[in-house]
Amino acid sequence: MPVATRAAVKGLQPEQVAATGAEVMLCNTYHLHLRPGEAIVKKLGGLHKFSGWSGPILTDSGGFQVFSLANIRRISENGVYFKDTQDGREVLITPEKSMQIQFDLGSDIIMAFDDLTGLSLEAIGRTEEAFERTHRWLERSITEFKKLTKNLPVSKKPLLFGIVQGGLDQKLRARSLELIQAQPVDGIAIGGLAVGEPRPQMYKMLKFLAPRYDVNRPRYLMGVGEPVDMRLAIENGIDMFDCVLPTRNGRHGQVWITGDKKLNLSNAIFTKDSKPIDSKCDCQTCQVGYSRAFIRHLLRVQDPLAGSLASIHNLHYLACLCEEYR
Amino acid sequence: MPVATRAAVKGLQPEQVAATGAEVMLCNTYHLHLRPGEAIVKKLGGLHKFSGWSGPILTDSGGFQVFSLANIRRISENGVYFKDTQDGREVLITPEKSMQIQFDLGSDIIMAFDDLTGLSLEAIGRTEEAFERTHRWLERSITEFKKLTKNLPVSKKPLLFGIVQGGLDQKLRARSLELIQAQPVDGIAIGGLAVGEPRPQMYKMLKFLAPRYDVNRPRYLMGVGEPVDMRLAIENGIDMFDCVLPTRNGRHGQVWITGDKKLNLSNAIFTKDSKPIDSKCDCQTCQVGYSRAFIRHLLRVQDPLAGSLASIHNLHYLACLCEEYR
Repeated sequence: MPVATRAAVKGLQPEQVAATGAEVMLCNTYHLHLRPGEAIVKKLGGLHKFSGWSGPILTDSGGFQVFSLANIRRISENGVYFKDTQDGREVLITPEKSMQIQFDLGSDIIMAFDDLTGLSLEAIGRTEEAFERTHRWLERSITEFKKLTKNLPVSKKPLLFGIVQGGLDQKLRARSLELIQAQPVDGIAIGGLAVGEPRPQMYKMLKFLAPRYDVNRPRYLMGVGEPVDMRLAIENGIDMFDCVLPTRNGRHGQVWITGDKKLNLSNAIFTKDSKPIDSKCDCQTCQVGYSRAFIRHLLRVQDPLAGSLASIHNLHYLACLCEEYR
Repeated sequence: MPVATRAAVKGLQPEQVAATGAEVMLCNTYHLHLRPGEAIVKKLGGLHKFSGWSGPILTDSGGFQVFSLANIRRISENGVYFKDTQDGREVLITPEKSMQIQFDLGSDIIMAFDDLTGLSLEAIGRTEEAFERTHRWLERSITEFKKLTKNLPVSKKPLLFGIVQGGLDQKLRARSLELIQAQPVDGIAIGGLAVGEPRPQMYKMLKFLAPRYDVNRPRYLMGVGEPVDMRLAIENGIDMFDCVLPTRNGRHGQVWITGDKKLNLSNAIFTKDSKPIDSKCDCQTCQVGYSRAFIRHLLRVQDPLAGSLASIHNLHYLACLCEEYR
């Protein structure tokens, strides 16, 4: 799932994103709550109409910001207080609020609001607390979700995914998975991995969890987008991914080519390279035949077209990887 | 002609530019000489292959930079010394050098190298000097152009346009036009207007020049792109225009709508506006139906997609204006 934090995959039109083979777009609840606000998106017909993306949309619950904005938030049992760095106001996100925002945005896949810890000393110290709270918040998320959707026909009802936490502790993870799979959620997300731990530790956890999944529900590994990691995850039961890597790296000129190799197109060795990014690739960028030299030039003169062309390529690369496994 | 200073219309793929109805792309000799350099563009097959633009390309001679980079250049009879602000090196552009660069870039319409003055006191003081020099430099441009193209079959030969100067002095302008039309140039460009003079003065000059043009050669008014100015110019014999306005304004959220009116989409009044930029417009942005509210949101969160969508609309607006007059 390409990441469209603020309702757009940076620099790309939705039809360009769809042409890469990506099927679901991810938007961010917290950032859209701040700007433009869910009331405006709702008034304008919901995220699909607003953004022009006609495929499914998954909204992150804001839980990831508990981790990524750790220095401007404070956690209470009720929810999380964030500071809007742009205007200084304090913003409270509770599980109920997160459900309401996602519902108003018109999301197709709503994520439960979770308490995500990282790997800092402070974070490690509260792994168990966050684990416990994640389950209490899941129950509140479900209650609110049911309230919001009770009058909708099944065909209009969004899905709700629960999020497994527990850090790098196998006992906590197993218990978390069990608790979440015991709930009436439509999909199982694995949160709190790929937050800076050594790769072997993430792999160990994915292998540990693999035989424990409910095979009837889709499994989503949050925040992972390196091809090598995706491969191991898919081989261990994961169905869905989101990550900023293909687009963020793309904007910095980093692209994947056949064999999961990486090129950095900013590199001077590409100055006169007339080849497309990957001659085996059938993404729009490679098919039109924009040369590595042209994209390098665009990076150098800071034309946003560089990021668009490289993002298209990277998104297609990951879509093909998934297709290969299907 | 949309301006692709550094071989790309910022943020847009050539096919997106072509879809607006624009037929010729303008690139800048001076900027491409600095980065990536004409040798690299030539090695990569010329500007068309490099940029992916398959229509005609006109290259500005670098003469405009004599004006726009006035604080980092020094003029001599031989040519103009510029300072590359990025690495401090001094770069000499002579009429011969300008022809060589444009030829190596693979331009379809090559502009003579001229000495363009503005309206500052220093500039006014040297109007006559610049006028004289422009004609000496035109002769040198023609000589070099002939040398470069002498072995080319007619079908491969680029065109050469001469540039009329003379500031706001009718006598100088009439003489300049006469001198330039006496030369074997393929088109007549009017330079040195739209450089800050009051609109009525530009209009007066365009009307003064109108009956004096050679009707067998295309006439190109340089640097003009406001609809109201284009209309008056077309009605006074002008065939071609280039301007950064449609794209630069677009990146700042300024768009034209039916009746040559301007909207600034950054304005808060568009926060909930579900209408497309112009409901009468059939550009891709308006046809997909991106709302003013969505584009305003993209501007606010600094997504380059805002600039792309507004640029597409503005370029189409000007292409339609020309179509209307045809």
